[in-house]
Amino acid sequence: MARTVIEHVLSRLRDIGVTDVFGVPGDYSFAVSDAVCNDPDLQWVGCCNELNAAYAADGYARIRGVAALSTTYGVGELSAVNGIAGAYAEHLPIFHLVGTPNMATQSARALMHHTLGNGEYDLYRRMSEPVVCAQAVMTPQNVAWETERLIAEALYHRRPVYMAFPADLANQPVAGQAPAIAAPRSNAAKLARAADEIVAALQAAGSACVLPGILVQRAGARAAMQALIDASGLPFATMFMAKSVLDEQQPGYVGMYDGALMNPEVRDFVEGADRVLVVGSPMTDFNTGAFTARLDARKTITIGHHRTLIDGRVHADVEMGELLAALAQRLPRRDWKRIAAGSLGEPAGRGGDAIDASALYPRWAGFIRPDDVVVAETGTVSMGLGFARLPRGAGFHNQTLWGSIGWATPAAFGAAVAAPGRRVLLLTGDGSHQLTAQEIGQFGRLGLKPVVFVLNNSGYLIERLLNKDPAIAYNDIAPWRYAELPHALGCDGWMTARVTTCDELDDAMAAAATAEAGVYIEVVTDAYAASPLAQKLGDALKAMRKGE
Amino acid sequence: MARTVIEHVLSRLRDIGVTDVFGVPGDYSFAVSDAVCNDPDLQWVGCCNELNAAYAADGYARIRGVAALSTTYGVGELSAVNGIAGAYAEHLPIFHLVGTPNMATQSARALMHHTLGNGEYDLYRRMSEPVVCAQAVMTPQNVAWETERLIAEALYHRRPVYMAFPADLANQPVAGQAPAIAAPRSNAAKLARAADEIVAALQAAGSACVLPGILVQRAGARAAMQALIDASGLPFATMFMAKSVLDEQQPGYVGMYDGALMNPEVRDFVEGADRVLVVGSPMTDFNTGAFTARLDARKTITIGHHRTLIDGRVHADVEMGELLAALAQRLPRRDWKRIAAGSLGEPAGRGGDAIDASALYPRWAGFIRPDDVVVAETGTVSMGLGFARLPRGAGFHNQTLWGSIGWATPAAFGAAVAAPGRRVLLLTGDGSHQLTAQEIGQFGRLGLKPVVFVLNNSGYLIERLLNKDPAIAYNDIAPWRYAELPHALGCDGWMTARVTTCDELDDAMAAAATAEAGVYIEVVTDAYAASPLAQKLGDALKAMRKGE
Repeated sequence: MARTVIEHVLSRLRDIGVTDVFGVPGDYSFAVSDAVCNDPDLQWVGCCNELNAAYAADGYARIRGVAALSTTYGVGELSAVNGIAGAYAEHLPIFHLVGTPNMATQSARALMHHTLGNGEYDLYRRMSEPVVCAQAVMTPQNVAWETERLIAEALYHRRPVYMAFPADLANQPVAGQAPAIAAPRSNAAKLARAADEIVAALQAAGSACVLPGILVQRAGARAAMQALIDASGLPFATMFMAKSVLDEQQPGYVGMYDGALMNPEVRDFVEGADRVLVVGSPMTDFNTGAFTARLDARKTITIGHHRTLIDGRVHADVEMGELLAALAQRLPRRDWKRIAAGSLGEPAGRGGDAIDASALYPRWAGFIRPDDVVVAETGTVSMGLGFARLPRGAGFHNQTLWGSIGWATPAAFGAAVAAPGRRVLLLTGDGSHQLTAQEIGQFGRLGLKPVVFVLNNSGYLIERLLNKDPAIAYNDIAPWRYAELPHALGCDGWMTARVTTCDELDDAMAAAATAEAGVYIEVVTDAYAASPLAQKLGDALKAMRKGE
Repeated sequence: MARTVIEHVLSRLRDIGVTDVFGVPGDYSFAVSDAVCNDPDLQWVGCCNELNAAYAADGYARIRGVAALSTTYGVGELSAVNGIAGAYAEHLPIFHLVGTPNMATQSARALMHHTLGNGEYDLYRRMSEPVVCAQAVMTPQNVAWETERLIAEALYHRRPVYMAFPADLANQPVAGQAPAIAAPRSNAAKLARAADEIVAALQAAGSACVLPGILVQRAGARAAMQALIDASGLPFATMFMAKSVLDEQQPGYVGMYDGALMNPEVRDFVEGADRVLVVGSPMTDFNTGAFTARLDARKTITIGHHRTLIDGRVHADVEMGELLAALAQRLPRRDWKRIAAGSLGEPAGRGGDAIDASALYPRWAGFIRPDDVVVAETGTVSMGLGFARLPRGAGFHNQTLWGSIGWATPAAFGAAVAAPGRRVLLLTGDGSHQLTAQEIGQFGRLGLKPVVFVLNNSGYLIERLLNKDPAIAYNDIAPWRYAELPHALGCDGWMTARVTTCDELDDAMAAAATAEAGVYIEVVTDAYAASPLAQKLGDALKAMRKGE
């Protein structure tokens, strides 16, 4: 028997690397979730709610390059839309599969549950248009072609797509077929010209620095980027959004570049270079130290995902990965000037000392092992840890542009599903954790063993730093007993601790390092214990907002 | 000094009954949350996340008639949008106050956090268009007039509105002024004609029944509706969405009408009447027993919020409340035929018996006191309890049309904030509770004392009833220890229990009845213990979907 519409789509998603589908079931989407559960090569990964499921898919896509999310019509898809928007902003291709009422119900404009009661059935698809790069209502007639188109769009833009499955069509047999759409290749002449110009510019430069960005990772161009570094000997610095895009232990790494906010020696090095090669790195507020980065356009070469800009000339139809590979072939090795990357130094505090930022972040930095997956929440936590130098193979994940607090907990869950062989560290603040904390239970349910650190500083610290009145009531949160959560959420046998002193923290971290179960450590600090970057960023953003 | 833009809006919201603003703060919305905190007549009610805050506002609006929600740009407003859509579907005027980046940032198309990184700043407002009845970007120049327009729209449609506050404009002084817009009055001639026709039709009828619907409550017309019942002696039945719209202890109440699914004697009474007066009751799937209600259009008089339909004639510009009041004046009292309303009967089970539906729902029904606020989650819980006859003054709240699981927990919190003098009962299933359970902590934080029952039946029971394969994996959920949650979430001194037998349930309910603190009882049943309506609805919906 021919494959059904939904079976066909799932089969193609498996082909491109999806082995797990995150979601929450609903009656309009039974056809989708049934097909997932009935496919021996796919795992249904139920989440507590749809936003959490979208965040989990986001975390999975950061590891695997693609992800799939299944939600029901209306209530489900709209709950997930903020997570989809985040995947759009952060260039993560999530296939959002939405089960909808059947065509007869839609045509009748029936007053069904999950509608607005006005007979309109196409509103939610329209609402999601701005946050996906392509959409389709999947039918037996179009599914073969539309699936290829949507896969091609998702991979070209590295952004989410929306696929609607009317309940009566999802289980119909596929009519027709369509070939896969190959990824675009560069225009050979333009590629050669861009490479020529970059080689010449670097040959004429006395000093240079590469800024490999998040698109290098998203576009699957890390190997080509590393080959360029290896072949040329060029030094590189990293902006916040792309932290860990290349290994931070290699000699070419000069450190984190964050404009004028942090690491003045890295800033001088980058901004003082004759040429800066920016590769797939958007110049957003948190990537540029609140727009304090000063990259001279005359010195900057910008390699984008699909186009390159040098000295005012645009080379369109040039694919990042191919250009990096060409440059790796052509750039001669030189003994480029470089500086040594720093890190956070030795931890402060001991014994019964309270835990402050100088005690905490260096300890966390020292806890990270090679190949760990580190998921750091938006806010003071990621800012504090972002300047640690990571061990070989460790990945650092943060939602730097979208910055939706609550993302990290489910994203860490999704990353753990994607990378079952690696240790996952989740580092989150208390305020952020409260948005999505219930997803901790999913780690236990699936037997996953993350190490979770929850920084309990009694509220939204990043907002206290940004506020005129840091103690204003809305920065306070409900006083949870965080360390009790894993047991309440069904995580059996986990190691949990609540620590308030350096000694307690050291003991808990020593135990965590050898734990064979999941770990959840509540770290209690003063309400104002912030890292230097968080302090400076707070000041910088306050200055930007002056006069409001 | 003149009032600022945000101060003006908040002042007008106070005028119409808002004393609390639900939300989650964010840096773009500081101006809004600052103004709330600095207003001595307003309370900032922080929630764990924005969807929960929207649901809480929904629950508050069910009690107060209006509510306000404050979220930040992008990440916040999009997280809340499903809750706003629910308020649209269920006719609840929520004022959604969204703080946005300042105008200079927007004009510069700056790559700020919470944007999609494409320089577009108006996308999220557009995304919310289908789920609000009006929108505006609030400026010093337009705020006086736009505030009146948005209030008028929200109250006319009883639906949410969206108000954007650019950060640099929110604290500017108001320019200009505008008078309040009066609620529309009926066209007097049309009102008289509609009343004439209804009086004549009822005079000619040998039997009749009223179906007072949810819009009666939403439009503030309960007193007029009750006056009509009192004056005329007409009997009434209630459809699911409007349960408790009128007191169920009065002699005119004949019971719940749910088409062919339940209460055949009520069905015969309603469908056999010469005239049925449907007042503000949308004919949705769950309101009509999955479209098994058979109301003959020739016998039906439909009084809508702003128009009335009788014998094929539409009387537009006739306001429901005015028409009901006119009818109460004019309808002569008659000794209309009626039947006696039933209830759930005596509870089954005792001692060490396991708890099944026939044991549980009658016990819950008996637990409800006069004036309780009962918030019942979508799914088997509300279906089981919906056919209990409520004591005087008790209110029953369910999201019958939108049906977004997870709604009930935060909605109960919002209702508790709205009605501090009344006891709030939250009845929810485990699957639904997991979506939004963290909001339990807010009850404790604010010293509110609800009685919470969580029905632990190991998954999504309503979906097991609707599924071809009830045991399919996606209907399972993480095995939480629910009764541990209140303590973990900071609810000090609460009474908690986990009960698996009728004896344990009886003991816990007896203790709960006299508890002076919050109560949280986990009721463990078999995975398939469903009420009769849930069973029948499952069968009916399965039949409707045949052939998918």
